[in-house]
Amino acid sequence: MNTIIRDALHARRTQLTEPEAKALCTQYSIQTPKGQVARTQEEAFEASGKLGFPLVAKIVSAQTIHKTEAGGVILNIQSPEEAKSAYNQVIKRVKQRNPDARIDGVLLERMAPPGVEVIVGATEDPQFGKTLMFGIGGVFVEVLQDVAFKLAPITDDDAKRMVAEIHSQSLLTGFRGSAPVDKEAIVEILMATSKLVTENDAVKELDLNPVIVHEKGAVVVDARVVLSQTSNERTPSVCPVDSLMKFFKPEAVAVIGVSATPGRIGHEVFRSLSQYEYAGKVYPVNPTAETILGTKTFGSVLDIPGTVNLAVLTTPANSAPSVLDECGRKGVQAAIIVSGGFKETGMNDLESQIVETAKKYGIRILGPNCIGILDSRSGLDTFFHAHDRMLRPKPGPVAFLTQSGTYGVTILEWAAEENIGISKFVSYGNRCDIDEGDLVQYFGQDPETSVIGIYVEGLDNGRKLYESGCKVTARKPIVILKSGRTGLGSKTAKSHTGWLAGSYEVAKAAFEQAGMIVAEDVEQLYDIVKALAMQPLPKGSNIAMVTNGAGPCVMAADKIEEYGMGLASISNETVSALKRVLPSYCLISATTVDLTGSGTSKDYDTALQHLAKDPEVHILMPFLVFQDTPLDEAILEVIAGLRKFGKPIICCAAGGPYTRKMSKAIETFHVPVYETAERAVNAARGLVLQLRIAGELSVSR
Amino acid sequence: MNTIIRDALHARRTQLTEPEAKALCTQYSIQTPKGQVARTQEEAFEASGKLGFPLVAKIVSAQTIHKTEAGGVILNIQSPEEAKSAYNQVIKRVKQRNPDARIDGVLLERMAPPGVEVIVGATEDPQFGKTLMFGIGGVFVEVLQDVAFKLAPITDDDAKRMVAEIHSQSLLTGFRGSAPVDKEAIVEILMATSKLVTENDAVKELDLNPVIVHEKGAVVVDARVVLSQTSNERTPSVCPVDSLMKFFKPEAVAVIGVSATPGRIGHEVFRSLSQYEYAGKVYPVNPTAETILGTKTFGSVLDIPGTVNLAVLTTPANSAPSVLDECGRKGVQAAIIVSGGFKETGMNDLESQIVETAKKYGIRILGPNCIGILDSRSGLDTFFHAHDRMLRPKPGPVAFLTQSGTYGVTILEWAAEENIGISKFVSYGNRCDIDEGDLVQYFGQDPETSVIGIYVEGLDNGRKLYESGCKVTARKPIVILKSGRTGLGSKTAKSHTGWLAGSYEVAKAAFEQAGMIVAEDVEQLYDIVKALAMQPLPKGSNIAMVTNGAGPCVMAADKIEEYGMGLASISNETVSALKRVLPSYCLISATTVDLTGSGTSKDYDTALQHLAKDPEVHILMPFLVFQDTPLDEAILEVIAGLRKFGKPIICCAAGGPYTRKMSKAIETFHVPVYETAERAVNAARGLVLQLRIAGELSVSR
Repeated sequence: MNTIIRDALHARRTQLTEPEAKALCTQYSIQTPKGQVARTQEEAFEASGKLGFPLVAKIVSAQTIHKTEAGGVILNIQSPEEAKSAYNQVIKRVKQRNPDARIDGVLLERMAPPGVEVIVGATEDPQFGKTLMFGIGGVFVEVLQDVAFKLAPITDDDAKRMVAEIHSQSLLTGFRGSAPVDKEAIVEILMATSKLVTENDAVKELDLNPVIVHEKGAVVVDARVVLSQTSNERTPSVCPVDSLMKFFKPEAVAVIGVSATPGRIGHEVFRSLSQYEYAGKVYPVNPTAETILGTKTFGSVLDIPGTVNLAVLTTPANSAPSVLDECGRKGVQAAIIVSGGFKETGMNDLESQIVETAKKYGIRILGPNCIGILDSRSGLDTFFHAHDRMLRPKPGPVAFLTQSGTYGVTILEWAAEENIGISKFVSYGNRCDIDEGDLVQYFGQDPETSVIGIYVEGLDNGRKLYESGCKVTARKPIVILKSGRTGLGSKTAKSHTGWLAGSYEVAKAAFEQAGMIVAEDVEQLYDIVKALAMQPLPKGSNIAMVTNGAGPCVMAADKIEEYGMGLASISNETVSALKRVLPSYCLISATTVDLTGSGTSKDYDTALQHLAKDPEVHILMPFLVFQDTPLDEAILEVIAGLRKFGKPIICCAAGGPYTRKMSKAIETFHVPVYETAERAVNAARGLVLQLRIAGELSVSR
Repeated sequence: MNTIIRDALHARRTQLTEPEAKALCTQYSIQTPKGQVARTQEEAFEASGKLGFPLVAKIVSAQTIHKTEAGGVILNIQSPEEAKSAYNQVIKRVKQRNPDARIDGVLLERMAPPGVEVIVGATEDPQFGKTLMFGIGGVFVEVLQDVAFKLAPITDDDAKRMVAEIHSQSLLTGFRGSAPVDKEAIVEILMATSKLVTENDAVKELDLNPVIVHEKGAVVVDARVVLSQTSNERTPSVCPVDSLMKFFKPEAVAVIGVSATPGRIGHEVFRSLSQYEYAGKVYPVNPTAETILGTKTFGSVLDIPGTVNLAVLTTPANSAPSVLDECGRKGVQAAIIVSGGFKETGMNDLESQIVETAKKYGIRILGPNCIGILDSRSGLDTFFHAHDRMLRPKPGPVAFLTQSGTYGVTILEWAAEENIGISKFVSYGNRCDIDEGDLVQYFGQDPETSVIGIYVEGLDNGRKLYESGCKVTARKPIVILKSGRTGLGSKTAKSHTGWLAGSYEVAKAAFEQAGMIVAEDVEQLYDIVKALAMQPLPKGSNIAMVTNGAGPCVMAADKIEEYGMGLASISNETVSALKRVLPSYCLISATTVDLTGSGTSKDYDTALQHLAKDPEVHILMPFLVFQDTPLDEAILEVIAGLRKFGKPIICCAAGGPYTRKMSKAIETFHVPVYETAERAVNAARGLVLQLRIAGELSVSR
């Protein structure tokens, strides 16, 4: 352990003095002003002469946190005499305010010349652990909350992004004719801070505020370091993948608590498992009924003759510990607890009890308070939702994991209707054992899965999700949506203004740092997953639009510019060729081919084929007003024929039954159709983001 | 005319000198520093003694716009001697830089004590005319573009809102312990500036920058005024309502350019008009065919025996002038030009020609380049969209006007499927004559219309739309969506309907100032219109959520907080009552009643009835997971039974065919259902906004 920190902890102090904090900075090559601690007025006089002027005098006292407010700071000292009198004045003032404060002297420091004041911070986020913060000082952080976060440790690229991400960053590149400041120096301080907090777990908070950045170099004018003896132990990041396998492809399942009454949750779970696709054995456990849905019941899981790989519990919460104990004795190693009535109702002890029982027998638990699992290939289906009320999607590449069963059900039905194949679906509810990190690791190695969608509310071990994501995103895209942004945000907010942005900002930064694509609402989550599941990645971000009704293209263009994506500048040759071959009613610009309401399938074919061959065009975006009578059903073949070019195709069409029929027909050959321009552009953006993520990560990892 | 402005215009100057601009300010009671123009060094010496110190010296020269850069400013003059030497220095420096500049002396002014620097500006917006701007000086305006706009003239409330709307406004209320500054003084300057630019049309630009605001009072330190001789004449705001009547309820319509070939636009327009609801006479004009769709054709509109009230043109663009001339001779007074090929393709002369011809005969034109009109009551329907491809909505309260036919078609089909009744639909395309302002005025007085939805791309006479909106919004809600917001979007819009879009920020401010509800995308536009069409306005903004699956409620809570709306604090009595009467599996908090997946229709009924009776609850928001088997179809009666309480009900449900069936069943009794929590909350927000608008406007107007 670092000696400065060790000594402070040894003295049972939770805060370093400023000279200590600065010495720690110096050890990590973070530049601080030339300075010296004077312990007498004579020392102040002498030291000042050696340091040069102007100087600042600051009280050194672990008990005096707000130095300026305590009268402990004097600026602009110009001579040894002034230094001596400043020494006396500072000590006198602080003693007046707080007679009991232990004073360790007065720090004399050269004043830094003016520059841009920035803030570098680090904290221990309760979900994500060591987190770095960067912002420009004063109103930008305090009023506008214009800050960037990254989890430590960071790469050089991460540090550069932090600097580039803040809105006020143009202040660093020269504002109103002032010279640009040294961004590289900020990057070095961020990297050094990352190293400092990573190597020293005891550092719980660190504030370099202000850091004055000059044309060349940057200097930390004030530093504050808060320590803690307690270490934040986290569950190990690595999930034993084997332990999850049984949840998806069990040979035999026991459903415990199967009611004989149709409509009851246990009954419906048993129905979904026993009457449809799942080919394994399904045993209903019910102590009173003889048979349920024609199947012989068992009084207890212990009465079942053969092996049971997976138990699904729909029994009342308070019976869960004893039921789990029986499962353990039976040798069951995987349990899905559908029942609610645990932590979400304040029954934390009951939840701890089931965790203990499970540990004792080596059982892994999914839930409680969840709807469980759908595996489209094994047919395993633990939903209590009747088939006439809820569609199940066909097998395919998307794994979806969700804390909320409701969102899960919605997305699965949307997927079923729009031809998105699902590999596995997991609802994990209260997450007493298996969490998002485990599942991301599992799907990362799952050959049936190539796209991962996640909905989370609260996070427990965010760091684990982050680390799991880091390992997966270069190979498989992860799209994530988090709710619970506002309430939780304030709770985790620290007293220091820099952290007022709250926990959603940290979570979002962490997800992005791990290479996940962050969705802001459930439509975005679904739409991006849909594009990733159906289309190849583009080679660039240029979109070309072809339409027979231009209104939505105007909106799309707005969105494309807002996202900073390119709209293809269609090459002059392609424009000339299109003008030659398309009918005269068509309006051809460098960004959009508007076939107008007179546009036919043949016009679409001509336009799209030309654009597909233009190397400047990376994404084809046909907008289709199917209601326009001149457009006939040959358009389906036109779209299907575009797939051979290997460029992603994103369609947009909205309307009633006829439009939906046509859209679904297009989706049968895996070209996605979106209802609005905004949704189409957002989906295209998802593809472009994943292109960048895969490119960057394959280089840096 | 103001004498200062008159004299400057007389001297053919386009810019006032600083002393002139400040004298103008003084005439409008805007405070400027005590100052005097010195024309000799002796005058400078003497004047300074009278003014007091410190002073600033500034060159007075209409040719020297950037005074500081030209060396024309010296700060912090402390004595008459310094004033004299500053006089000489300023003149010498400016002459060196620009020997030809006419110099009218040196302005000596008392320096204002430090305070918060703000900017008040006014400009002549090409679409909206005189527009005011407010922001905090320096980076806030220049880097962060944190500014508020309003059209002049403004009310006192408008001025207060401008101050409150900027993000950095907390700087005015005291930042880092500094005292709050005088917001009332800013409001007074805004009001005075509004008066100044309104009374003096020649003032095209005005910049009060900086205005230094103190704890008490505010002073304009620099002022710049740009003049123009040319007046910006606008079309009179008042639309003769009678001239539009014929478009919706004509007795006889001629469709000119009816092709005999099914699928061609002219043919399909004639089919829509002649084969469905419209009961009036429909005459097809075609010079070659004998009959079309069984109806005798006419070679020209002049050959039609009876009166023709409305002509629908689907002829090629270049024949439009002669066809219109024939219409004029026939006495037709209303024409819809469906055909494209005018301004949007660069054929501006052709468009001018039709406008001229129409003026000659007093014909009003809708279009060109549009899909025309649907009147659900008269049955008038000019769409070229076949009925088997496009649903038509039933009669009801919503008027919808759109520049884009495509958006129109989409929204009409959505409305048809979700039981939203439409009074009238108008697509106006290139808008060569009838514009949004006309239509808003028309719908404002239309007894069949009680909600107005608008989609616009570019605007021509934005001021007219604004003024028309002001007259309507207190009585009838207007929801507006504008695209063409970015450079790219605007470019795409131009090639669509021939109109460049202006600054979106100004347009948005103008819409809001007129009391319109601004939607950011087409879903928002549709969703808010749907809620306004189906539900009463609430008495407040408190929402109570009841659900059988809480995930979307978390997202809704985020959105509710983001919008700054209230989430009902359900009274203690109601909470206790609900805990008593609901089953134990229900989770009851002060904001949400979670019936959990076990929730039944009876549970919903119990919960919703209690909440409907709670006076703290203003909006009921049931979330319905219809897929959950315990929820049966009695839920329909439960929702229907809630209407008697007169509180708005906004439902949320998403999924596949079963869920859609249930949602549509709810919508048959005019309770709207939304697919996502975000959309439901946004719809509720629309109701709350309209409540505020109606309340505020009924007081202020």
